[in-house]
Amino acid sequence: MRPTTTLSTALTLLSLLSAPHLQAADVKPSPNGIELPEGYKDWPVISVSHRVDNNTLRAIIGNEIAVKAAREGQTAPWPTGTILGKLVWKQTEEKYWPAAISPKTFVHAEFMLKDPKKYTNGTGWGWARWLGKEQKPWSDQADAQQACISCHTVVKAPSQDWVFTTPAPLP
Amino acid sequence: MRPTTTLSTALTLLSLLSAPHLQAADVKPSPNGIELPEGYKDWPVISVSHRVDNNTLRAIIGNEIAVKAAREGQTAPWPTGTILGKLVWKQTEEKYWPAAISPKTFVHAEFMLKDPKKYTNGTGWGWARWLGKEQKPWSDQADAQQACISCHTVVKAPSQDWVFTTPAPLP
Repeated sequence: MRPTTTLSTALTLLSLLSAPHLQAADVKPSPNGIELPEGYKDWPVISVSHRVDNNTLRAIIGNEIAVKAAREGQTAPWPTGTILGKLVWKQTEEKYWPAAISPKTFVHAEFMLKDPKKYTNGTGWGWARWLGKEQKPWSDQADAQQACISCHTVVKAPSQDWVFTTPAPLP
Repeated sequence: MRPTTTLSTALTLLSLLSAPHLQAADVKPSPNGIELPEGYKDWPVISVSHRVDNNTLRAIIGNEIAVKAAREGQTAPWPTGTILGKLVWKQTEEKYWPAAISPKTFVHAEFMLKDPKKYTNGTGWGWARWLGKEQKPWSDQADAQQACISCHTVVKAPSQDWVFTTPAPLP
């Protein structure tokens, strides 16, 4: 191993050690070409939910366009450029307040990206999901988003624009 | 009414009509002097919870110092400058997915501000809450935060630093 390679390896290791959280650039794109949205962990909250059918908690977050639309009630349809994200955790009880059902392990982050010209699957949205803290693309099949679309078909009416979430009221 | 007063009144009305959301500057401070934190609705998510003892959903959010501390696990104690916020809603069922328990009416926003030199009540934190979409201070009594402190005493151990919330794991 040449000295420059050793130095490079050492720097890579150092960078891994000092950056415990995955960056979007380290994560593989979804098989339909959608990249993990940069900086999504810093996005504001649009809503939250507790799925009692599969014991998960969710934060529904959005990029700047999504948050503006949610706050102004401009969601039928959501504007082009909207990205909605869901952070999903398995549930547990908060240690010192067990009646507070709270996040345990991180399950996945999933996204809907609105751009009818770009996403020509009939919904106007692109769909993608990354699993676990490793952020592994949910599938290696390019048509995997058909599973998302199938489930969301119940909310295809223009008043819902393929979105289940009702933005939570805020002051 | 003089013309300038009429103009001023008209401008005030116009400004109220064109700004449907309350700004921090429009909101009265808590009786202990704490001001509503500016821009809190844009803060990232630290956790979420479903209080099954009082049928509310919560988003736990934080300012930049809080979010950094939560992601790095530096929460025992939380650093000076931390502000933790809770957005609280009464629960309902999501219309097109009733097994998703979701926000209905906005109940309150409450905050803990860490600064042991500034807040000399024995906890190291300042405590404040504003009710409803009108963001009315929760009480007009300067010692109202004793109610917060009393309830949080169960988590006064240094490992919890007066905080119930366990930050949710993220990639």
